[in-house]
Amino acid sequence: MYEIVLIRHGESEYNRQNLFTGWSDPDLTEKGIQEAKEAGKLLKEAGYTFDLAFASVLKRSIKTLHYILEELDLLWLPVQKSWKLNERHYGALQGLSKSETALKYGEEQLHIWRRSLSVRPPLLEPDDPRYPRTDIRYQNVREGDIPRGESLEDTVHRVGDFWVNRIVPLIRKKERVLISAHGNTLRALIKYMEDIDEATLLNLNIPTGVPLVYKLDDNVNPISRFYLGEPAEVQAKAQEVANQSKVTE
Amino acid sequence: MYEIVLIRHGESEYNRQNLFTGWSDPDLTEKGIQEAKEAGKLLKEAGYTFDLAFASVLKRSIKTLHYILEELDLLWLPVQKSWKLNERHYGALQGLSKSETALKYGEEQLHIWRRSLSVRPPLLEPDDPRYPRTDIRYQNVREGDIPRGESLEDTVHRVGDFWVNRIVPLIRKKERVLISAHGNTLRALIKYMEDIDEATLLNLNIPTGVPLVYKLDDNVNPISRFYLGEPAEVQAKAQEVANQSKVTE
Repeated sequence: MYEIVLIRHGESEYNRQNLFTGWSDPDLTEKGIQEAKEAGKLLKEAGYTFDLAFASVLKRSIKTLHYILEELDLLWLPVQKSWKLNERHYGALQGLSKSETALKYGEEQLHIWRRSLSVRPPLLEPDDPRYPRTDIRYQNVREGDIPRGESLEDTVHRVGDFWVNRIVPLIRKKERVLISAHGNTLRALIKYMEDIDEATLLNLNIPTGVPLVYKLDDNVNPISRFYLGEPAEVQAKAQEVANQSKVTE
Repeated sequence: MYEIVLIRHGESEYNRQNLFTGWSDPDLTEKGIQEAKEAGKLLKEAGYTFDLAFASVLKRSIKTLHYILEELDLLWLPVQKSWKLNERHYGALQGLSKSETALKYGEEQLHIWRRSLSVRPPLLEPDDPRYPRTDIRYQNVREGDIPRGESLEDTVHRVGDFWVNRIVPLIRKKERVLISAHGNTLRALIKYMEDIDEATLLNLNIPTGVPLVYKLDDNVNPISRFYLGEPAEVQAKAQEVANQSKVTE
């Protein structure tokens, strides 16, 4: 039996302003930093340790990981950063506020973009400054692999591929793995691992900065998952995420 | 022609207390954090960027690197951490204050331990809690490779080996490399690259948190080196390091 720990980064500047983030690269807020440290303390108190860690190439994920590793006194751990763990690419919605988007396109369309499995956001034009091709961190990614906007299903394929090819082989070698990623990356990974139906996925809200532990069987299939920390607090944090759709409140 | 940048970590808790540090793992002080951020700003202003970075497995080196990468907006960069870039192992002197050591063994002996090329410090006993074998980060290092105390010459061999086998091949591939390491690791590397004589090496004091740029020829041999920043400030910081020997002041 194996175990892995997933974590959604702490609150970012865009989370706080309720903007579509995607591959935009805002920093953590002070609250986000505290959430990351708190996650590290929870893991430490529960006796967790790791052999290696993953993050996306976005600073909110990397910094969350660094704060956690510092609490665990594991800053020396090998860390692999990959764009394949980046947040779902939100296309031309990136940087827009969710309330503006709701006013412009309607709350139902907003909800569909945020929570449907197969609907893509409006795509970026290749000459858009938000198109990742112009960002040096993606210079070695094949042109066709760089998204201009992803459905959650697109993200499931990208993250599932990374899971199977890069992470599972390490788990089979008994490496204890910590993954610091993003709300939709983790929803995608859960979808990939558990093949949950769309309705369940719709209501799956991952709280920021709370360690999510997966128990896996000998074939690296999921047995169970649970959050570390006080259940009531975790529930309240998940509800905050759910409420981000209700932009007219 | 190639270029690399070396940096000695910012002030650590042990630096501030003037203790022998070696493979002990104290944190940066607030001053050390500021030095690291300042180094990042200097590199940014001078237009430097990098393709990958190295650090030791000691947190003062790793955190210095993280602060620099954050200033450069390069947190996503691949980072390789290796014990081969650790500070010179100071054996049984680790954790002792330099002034106590001078009182006990004499200032001359202290100076020999700190600045001679071939004299080792008193070695650690294998059952000493400071012996690295008990530290999980060294669990995969071969028993015979784990030092119980190193002369600077030992450190030159260890760092030189890492330089030739791990760093030079990357430089030849035109990777722009940043190395965050330690006072004696960098003295060892300079000794290895330039083969400077012992007297010159004796007086080579590397200031904390100041980027040291090396220009290298097509065979990755050094052409020149210089510090970024105000020469008078750099000189004053190097003098601080030199003064750490004068413990009776």
